[in-house]
Amino acid sequence: MDPGGARVLAAGPHSPSLRMWASKAGISRYSVPPSISSRTWATMNETRGSSGSSSGSEGSKDSSRCSTPGLDPERHERLREKMRRRMEAGDKWFSLEFFPPRTAEGAANLLAMFDEMAAGGPLFIDVTWHPAGNPGSDKETSSMMIASTAVNYCGLETMLHMSCCQQSPEEITGHLNKAKQLGIKNILALRGDPTGDQWDAEDGAFDYATDMVKHIRREFGDYFDICVAGYPKGHPEAGSFEEDLRHLKEKVSAGADFIITQLFFEADTFLHFVKACKEIGITCPILPGIFPIQSYSSMRQLVKLSKLEVPQEIKDVIEPIKDNDAAICSYGIELAVNLCQELLASGVVPGLHFYTLNRKMATTMVLKRLGMWNEDPRRPLPWAISAHPKRREEDVRPIFWASRPKSYIYRTQDWNEFPNGRWGNSSSPAFGELKNYYLFYLKSKCPRQELLKMWGEELSSEESVFEVFERYLSGEPNQHGYKVTCLPWNDEPLAAETSLMKEQLLRVNRLGILTINSQPNVNGKPSSDPIVGWGPSGGYVFQKAYLEFFTSRETAQALLQVLKKYELRVNYHIVDVKGENITNAPELQPNAVTWGIFPGREIIQPTVVDPISFMFWKDEAFALWIEQWGKLYDEESPSRMIIRYIHDNYFLVNLVDNEFPQDNCLWQVVEDAFELLSRPAGRSREVEAP
Amino acid sequence: MDPGGARVLAAGPHSPSLRMWASKAGISRYSVPPSISSRTWATMNETRGSSGSSSGSEGSKDSSRCSTPGLDPERHERLREKMRRRMEAGDKWFSLEFFPPRTAEGAANLLAMFDEMAAGGPLFIDVTWHPAGNPGSDKETSSMMIASTAVNYCGLETMLHMSCCQQSPEEITGHLNKAKQLGIKNILALRGDPTGDQWDAEDGAFDYATDMVKHIRREFGDYFDICVAGYPKGHPEAGSFEEDLRHLKEKVSAGADFIITQLFFEADTFLHFVKACKEIGITCPILPGIFPIQSYSSMRQLVKLSKLEVPQEIKDVIEPIKDNDAAICSYGIELAVNLCQELLASGVVPGLHFYTLNRKMATTMVLKRLGMWNEDPRRPLPWAISAHPKRREEDVRPIFWASRPKSYIYRTQDWNEFPNGRWGNSSSPAFGELKNYYLFYLKSKCPRQELLKMWGEELSSEESVFEVFERYLSGEPNQHGYKVTCLPWNDEPLAAETSLMKEQLLRVNRLGILTINSQPNVNGKPSSDPIVGWGPSGGYVFQKAYLEFFTSRETAQALLQVLKKYELRVNYHIVDVKGENITNAPELQPNAVTWGIFPGREIIQPTVVDPISFMFWKDEAFALWIEQWGKLYDEESPSRMIIRYIHDNYFLVNLVDNEFPQDNCLWQVVEDAFELLSRPAGRSREVEAP
Repeated sequence: MDPGGARVLAAGPHSPSLRMWASKAGISRYSVPPSISSRTWATMNETRGSSGSSSGSEGSKDSSRCSTPGLDPERHERLREKMRRRMEAGDKWFSLEFFPPRTAEGAANLLAMFDEMAAGGPLFIDVTWHPAGNPGSDKETSSMMIASTAVNYCGLETMLHMSCCQQSPEEITGHLNKAKQLGIKNILALRGDPTGDQWDAEDGAFDYATDMVKHIRREFGDYFDICVAGYPKGHPEAGSFEEDLRHLKEKVSAGADFIITQLFFEADTFLHFVKACKEIGITCPILPGIFPIQSYSSMRQLVKLSKLEVPQEIKDVIEPIKDNDAAICSYGIELAVNLCQELLASGVVPGLHFYTLNRKMATTMVLKRLGMWNEDPRRPLPWAISAHPKRREEDVRPIFWASRPKSYIYRTQDWNEFPNGRWGNSSSPAFGELKNYYLFYLKSKCPRQELLKMWGEELSSEESVFEVFERYLSGEPNQHGYKVTCLPWNDEPLAAETSLMKEQLLRVNRLGILTINSQPNVNGKPSSDPIVGWGPSGGYVFQKAYLEFFTSRETAQALLQVLKKYELRVNYHIVDVKGENITNAPELQPNAVTWGIFPGREIIQPTVVDPISFMFWKDEAFALWIEQWGKLYDEESPSRMIIRYIHDNYFLVNLVDNEFPQDNCLWQVVEDAFELLSRPAGRSREVEAP
Repeated sequence: MDPGGARVLAAGPHSPSLRMWASKAGISRYSVPPSISSRTWATMNETRGSSGSSSGSEGSKDSSRCSTPGLDPERHERLREKMRRRMEAGDKWFSLEFFPPRTAEGAANLLAMFDEMAAGGPLFIDVTWHPAGNPGSDKETSSMMIASTAVNYCGLETMLHMSCCQQSPEEITGHLNKAKQLGIKNILALRGDPTGDQWDAEDGAFDYATDMVKHIRREFGDYFDICVAGYPKGHPEAGSFEEDLRHLKEKVSAGADFIITQLFFEADTFLHFVKACKEIGITCPILPGIFPIQSYSSMRQLVKLSKLEVPQEIKDVIEPIKDNDAAICSYGIELAVNLCQELLASGVVPGLHFYTLNRKMATTMVLKRLGMWNEDPRRPLPWAISAHPKRREEDVRPIFWASRPKSYIYRTQDWNEFPNGRWGNSSSPAFGELKNYYLFYLKSKCPRQELLKMWGEELSSEESVFEVFERYLSGEPNQHGYKVTCLPWNDEPLAAETSLMKEQLLRVNRLGILTINSQPNVNGKPSSDPIVGWGPSGGYVFQKAYLEFFTSRETAQALLQVLKKYELRVNYHIVDVKGENITNAPELQPNAVTWGIFPGREIIQPTVVDPISFMFWKDEAFALWIEQWGKLYDEESPSRMIIRYIHDNYFLVNLVDNEFPQDNCLWQVVEDAFELLSRPAGRSREVEAP
């Protein structure tokens, strides 16, 4: 329900008295243009079709008839609109700045940190531009790639820094085009520092950030939201504070949307700066840059770079404890909390910007102390959405990638349209190959030695594989004392709802039903439910029970026998690595297994079991046995052969219990299969059958 | 769940042993082509977009990703596929032949008969071609228009007869193009009888139906399903039975899909004919034309036209009772039942074709006696679907037209795409004007005198209008002894579910809440529920409670006060004739109010409350006061002024209770408003409010 209450949709001359009642009732209102009855649906659809294929349409406000009802209004807004909405609501935000890492392993760690820090609810993050590190390249550690990953895989509103110094306008346009292509919508336009000692402006190159702002607006119109840097004490190279302020005014007038300041140590520095900005006519949001001191060396380095003076009273505290990182960090947190509280109390600060130095602890602590770290367990959809503008309408995905959402995003990155409202059927969606994805996002996540400790230095039998699955679910350490914290089929930690079925899962894994994905049935729980809830408040969520596992040929055979009894209730797919799929899915249609009903909205059904996509998923699921697990062992080793045996002979099975209002019958299906397997008479009967 | 059971989706080399199990389990299978991984989603969408806009794509088998899951598999099939499916299943069908009426009133009656006879489940109906009645024109009584109405408004699979005699190929192509445009997919190709005594073949005109079949296939490819006529005793003009059979063989070879025979009186006539057809190599379905004798005169006429001889034993029975229509009809039914039973028992008859002569009784009786009149209360969707191929995917409609589906179809006939999966928001759909629609479909339905008897020769007050609404719901006769069987807002009889709320509806109408649309809330009833069920078996259906009514300004004002208390639960729209709409719909999004969950399928949500469409509906709903009711009275009469007063001053209100799992709160909302109105203190408090 809209918090603004009732609205008036005016489509003709108004009746003043009813408007008066609405007004009395404390009801806000707005008008939409009168309906255009001469335009046909057909024309509107044609318009949509053509604008959809031209580039640059992402920024337009036209939304098609098929758009997703605004489960999350911010999802469709650009950064400056989000800021406006928050300011109107008096809702303070924070943002987080990171720099690109130097190694692939560092990149994997930084992405993990993005996911962790996203939980606190930053309005956006930004990634600095490393002129020396080939920042616009496709290297996994480049500024461009890190920002793109934050947008696409972590679903974060992301701003990419870009400096113009020593680059031609063509190079900058190239970078901006690439950023746009990758889904980046916000740019922090900087001059940047020349690498040499002398500032030699090249012909045609930009001398100032102002030129760059103008260039972006000229070349890309209103597509990007643009931020510029502000210097609360004046830029060190500027002739005076006033001269620097005039430069800032120029940058804003050229088309910047908001300002982030350089770090500073005292609230008054910032408040004086904001006052001066206002006086000179700068009206856009100004975000203070907060730098929690985390160590003596990092502070010294940053202060040197920024040419700032550290106040004497801070120096007095820090110098005596300069070798005690913990003490400095704790003091830094204290200082930052006090500074932020003073800033927030002033009433002129809409949000706080943190220089994290790629560290989690200090910034998180400050935000928690301020009460701004907002771990809202509510999810707009049951899976984490991507922030690429072309995925704005996406609201249906196959369940198979539930634990590997980054793989799903990677494999669908070339799609131009994403399922919205329903998955649809009949056509075969094309999923990209996984090769390059492995190289970076997964391979670097967990070193080989750690995986061997978790999954076994040596495997002795199929049962030793069963045990790994069991330990993963139970959380208990294996015989060598190591916990199994991941499996090849899980990018993400175990979903909370998995715990609802832990006992059953443990039992069946022990017996060789190697589960890789599951969900319980849910019959209308509130959307606020801490475990299975998602979507706006006041709604109800539903699920059909789902179970997906690898199992031996023998067990698959027994299941197929047993499933005849459940023919009208359970949909199944049973497939081996060669791609034979036995299923009772009606006309190979998708089966919706998660859906939600919300006040004043259409139905949302974010997860489906799609028979066609399952054939792509099974290739990935089977390959993971060899690529992630088997290859840990020597080629001729027994361990490698056990994994290969499973890969070659096991079946991947998925089961859906369509009777969501009743008790989940899938456990009974599996028990029936076990029972059949354990019954000698039953097996001989089967052999005798024609 | 598919009755065929499990299937094998092969996407690679097969593992023979698992296939063997599937085979043991009595499981059928089929293969789909291996997935084309080089095609991207984007390309597929582009392909769809372009083919969708070119004409003639309706016949292609390409379905887009967004297609409706096959709630009703027959909906997507062409007639010959439906026949094949029925024959494979051993499921006998029947079809019904009608001729175009002579007057507009006759047309309205015939359409009503289509709706009634559709309830029995004909596989298709056909409409004869009246060369003398300008059959291809836009006249409401033309063959073309009657067939088009059957397709579009009655949702019937329809075949249009078309004769080639005395028409140029260009004229025929013109007719066929028009038929295609109107959604007609089946043609019965006839030579037709020359109107003069002499057969003068024009230059270039077709001499035989064979030429016409060839022409259709040449000009329209495989678009139409084509039927041709067969003569069990040989065509009267043919030289011999054998010569006529060779002509028939030619017609079939030229591209006809099935045969309907001329009427005959003895089963052996037909069986001999079928045997002869088989021997000459005709393999397509042959449907016997059944003519239940209904009166002496109609029999004489038909026999004369068809140049058939009535068997002596029939003459012997009929002649003595030729003036007793009832006796003849009863004898005719008996004869037809016997004939049909003999035909069905022969095992060579896939379906029966009835010459109804536009009368319901005899054919219905025969079908009921045969056990083939199949009044299946199960509905594929909660509203009656249209059979126009471009509406094949349609599965969402605004609830407002629930009792005026023909008006909805009329007003959206120019759309090229129809909402599927979800309604969507943000754009304003264009609804056509109603003017021409009134002229025919509604105006001729009920004569003015009857309406006056129902709705009052003279109205004395607003309360006398309230009473009309009340009588309509109660079914009790009014003070002059007439039942109120319809209201301007209802094309269709009262929905069965309305009876679930009859007491509450009666009470509120008595108090001036003039309800025109409502549904109770439903929290997961089986899809087979006789009152609220729809869709395939094994599913669950849901509804949010809905109430729509006209009410006075005073009551609307009280409601608005009361609704503040229900802000988080009830969505409302309150609008007057001038178009002011007060609503709390979030971002003017549609609200799904009917949806269903089915085994192995995506969610279906066939009914929404769409804020934008509501503004179009309110124009129609207000206009009906004047057009249908007010204009019954003289311009200056008090009755006319009362209706005009309501039209000018009342509000149209709709309410949705989002809490579908709880008891419907809308009655309480209305009671609270009544309570507020009856409380003098409350009203004065209101006036005092700022």
